[in-house]
Amino acid sequence: MTDISITRLNASQNDFDSELARLLAWDDSVDQSVNESVRHILHQVKTRGDAAVLEFTEKFDRLKVGSVAELEISQERLQQALNAIPEDQRIALEKAADRVRDYHERQNQKSWQYEDQDGTVLGQKVTPLDRAGLYVPGGKAAYPSSVLMNAIPAKVAGVSEVIMVVPTPDGVVNDMVLAAAAIAGVDRVFCLGGAQAVGALAYGTETVPAVDKIVGPGNIFVATAKREVFGTVGIDMIAGPSEILVICDGQTDPDWIAMDLFSQAEHDEQAQSILISPDGDFLNAVEKSINALLPTMERADIIRTSMTDRAALIQVADLKEAAAVSNRIAPEHLELSVENPNEMLEDIRHAGAIFMGRYTAEALGDYCAGPNHVLPTSGTARFSSPLGVYDFQKRSSIIGFTAPGADRMGRVASVLARGEGLTAHARSAEYRVKD
Amino acid sequence: MTDISITRLNASQNDFDSELARLLAWDDSVDQSVNESVRHILHQVKTRGDAAVLEFTEKFDRLKVGSVAELEISQERLQQALNAIPEDQRIALEKAADRVRDYHERQNQKSWQYEDQDGTVLGQKVTPLDRAGLYVPGGKAAYPSSVLMNAIPAKVAGVSEVIMVVPTPDGVVNDMVLAAAAIAGVDRVFCLGGAQAVGALAYGTETVPAVDKIVGPGNIFVATAKREVFGTVGIDMIAGPSEILVICDGQTDPDWIAMDLFSQAEHDEQAQSILISPDGDFLNAVEKSINALLPTMERADIIRTSMTDRAALIQVADLKEAAAVSNRIAPEHLELSVENPNEMLEDIRHAGAIFMGRYTAEALGDYCAGPNHVLPTSGTARFSSPLGVYDFQKRSSIIGFTAPGADRMGRVASVLARGEGLTAHARSAEYRVKD
Repeated sequence: MTDISITRLNASQNDFDSELARLLAWDDSVDQSVNESVRHILHQVKTRGDAAVLEFTEKFDRLKVGSVAELEISQERLQQALNAIPEDQRIALEKAADRVRDYHERQNQKSWQYEDQDGTVLGQKVTPLDRAGLYVPGGKAAYPSSVLMNAIPAKVAGVSEVIMVVPTPDGVVNDMVLAAAAIAGVDRVFCLGGAQAVGALAYGTETVPAVDKIVGPGNIFVATAKREVFGTVGIDMIAGPSEILVICDGQTDPDWIAMDLFSQAEHDEQAQSILISPDGDFLNAVEKSINALLPTMERADIIRTSMTDRAALIQVADLKEAAAVSNRIAPEHLELSVENPNEMLEDIRHAGAIFMGRYTAEALGDYCAGPNHVLPTSGTARFSSPLGVYDFQKRSSIIGFTAPGADRMGRVASVLARGEGLTAHARSAEYRVKD
Repeated sequence: MTDISITRLNASQNDFDSELARLLAWDDSVDQSVNESVRHILHQVKTRGDAAVLEFTEKFDRLKVGSVAELEISQERLQQALNAIPEDQRIALEKAADRVRDYHERQNQKSWQYEDQDGTVLGQKVTPLDRAGLYVPGGKAAYPSSVLMNAIPAKVAGVSEVIMVVPTPDGVVNDMVLAAAAIAGVDRVFCLGGAQAVGALAYGTETVPAVDKIVGPGNIFVATAKREVFGTVGIDMIAGPSEILVICDGQTDPDWIAMDLFSQAEHDEQAQSILISPDGDFLNAVEKSINALLPTMERADIIRTSMTDRAALIQVADLKEAAAVSNRIAPEHLELSVENPNEMLEDIRHAGAIFMGRYTAEALGDYCAGPNHVLPTSGTARFSSPLGVYDFQKRSSIIGFTAPGADRMGRVASVLARGEGLTAHARSAEYRVKD
């Protein structure tokens, strides 16, 4: 097998900016036929409820049942799955869940209020969503870790009903996924997938309750459906392909770095793995490791395509420049495989999750470090955050004026409202002003 | 002039649920021609930059200039506007800004981290967005208060560049809007509106810098454009028509309540004002006030249409039931015009902002109470929050394993990764496990 060739860039080259932009470019435009198909499915589910859900489930998942109720998985079945999986898997899931719960509890937001000098009360009341929907991909990529990462923050937030949907093509159920649902405290599970599952959660059907927000990754149909129902319900984000950016000072074992890059590349052909180093020899060494290790990988074909099409080895002048390039990329996962990651951290402005030091393999964060593995992709770390407890809570402003406060501030409101030509606003405030 | 007739509902009537649903129903489906027009504009701005922005500004705002640079308003011009407006307006804007700033400073989020027993560091780093774009409606509804409410949280969050766009049809500039921009510390202002302004902020042009998030209300073209660019940049929310829900125990002056309802109704014909009370006589009294006050209102035509088409007076058995109905509505603005609002507050689960007690006119919150007036509409308070400092900050997870921690947790990650068939993940973790 011939060696693969990986894109090489140098931050000092004249066309670096445009080459980097080209490397990162990701066509997220959705095929018009996908849009139309998704709109059709959503409309059917919205107007015909269970009947439409059953039809699409038969069509897409080759699963024919008489009622949506038959697609619900009982709590007993979840417990059965938990008892059925190998003990080491059960223990690993439980350990991971404990750490994820512990971390997320620290994200819990509290209501607060204060009084100004007039006795006016101002504050913010934090409340959980009533119901959250979790989409868990099924089929080839059935990930129990996704169940933990999506459900635990919702339960920590205080969501009373967490409803999970997971497609089970041909009726194939993944016991590890069900076991994870049991551990995470998922309230109800339906064997549903695709746009029809998103529609059922957004609009509700006779059997599936409408939720307030839908979270979790999915294929292009799921992502498009989430975008469509946004507004009717909340959504977490539209996820692109997974990516990792490793910054290395050249002192980490090249095999470790190669494997860290593979751990993203194996997700799918569009996944992106980038290594930045000031050490050109080290980039060569990692490329050698990549080619040596690649034939030994179970998912070698996916990795080969991903590394060939989308990976890059980028040489920079120093770690300062590495941080600057990283901020331009705003990566989903950022490994700081350097001697002093804390020093570098100060320069990092945008990243979904930051993995500090040589021992912190990104894979640890995917499963059991504690922080969430649902992270902003495709540069959206510029403006968005990992999935967290805050995604399952919302705030209400609290305003309570005393008579003196309403008198004082009513005068201000009156001037501004009249300045905007909104005289009902002004007169409403003026009623509370003393003559 | 004949009295207007306002929808009357009683929570005890058999068809209350369906009648309430019908009352709240809001068709947010976008005309296909609007979609197409917006997509065309966005595509042109994305591919042709300034040239397209100039063309659309000439077409839609009847404003012909030679370059986008000429559409930028200088800081000197903002200061001029601040000096030009009447002194009472300047003082009112400054007082409002102070209160808004003071409130929002309490929303500032801090980075945090902790160590587990292995010395593993876990945490969350909070950083501001680099650049935020603020859309401020122009023309008929040019609201200086919107400038304060959008820009101040961004500046409090630490956003280094806040870029405001405001349409100036026929070149008409609103000095109060510019004065508000000066007070709020807006960094750059462009006289741009519509989908072309959203496109310029999302993609950047030769002259307008690309931002990371676009916030602020706008018409259907602006809302549709924001929905389209979501993913390329963050957006705040897709706002529907404004609404108020007043819950009154029957002891507030009916004129006050009528005017509070008007203060939403005057926004536009689709605005919704609802009053809930256990006291049927009080509902009659408010209806009388409505009809007595309506002819005295400057915006009587808008108010009449809104109150006739979308308002309702709802009788309930008691305040407990009022809270339950309110939670179903999840109103943008909720006035608790009752003797003991704190007691009621416990039962309120979903609302954008809650106005406590008879003196707290909703209009006070619109201008100068301190909390934001950009609030979730159309029931989206079920899952979203007022605009806040948190909208201009994002989080990065921090994970730093020590060698012992990577050894211990690498074993867990390995089991889970192999359970998911992701062996590069497993091997990446296993490299950090001691033999």
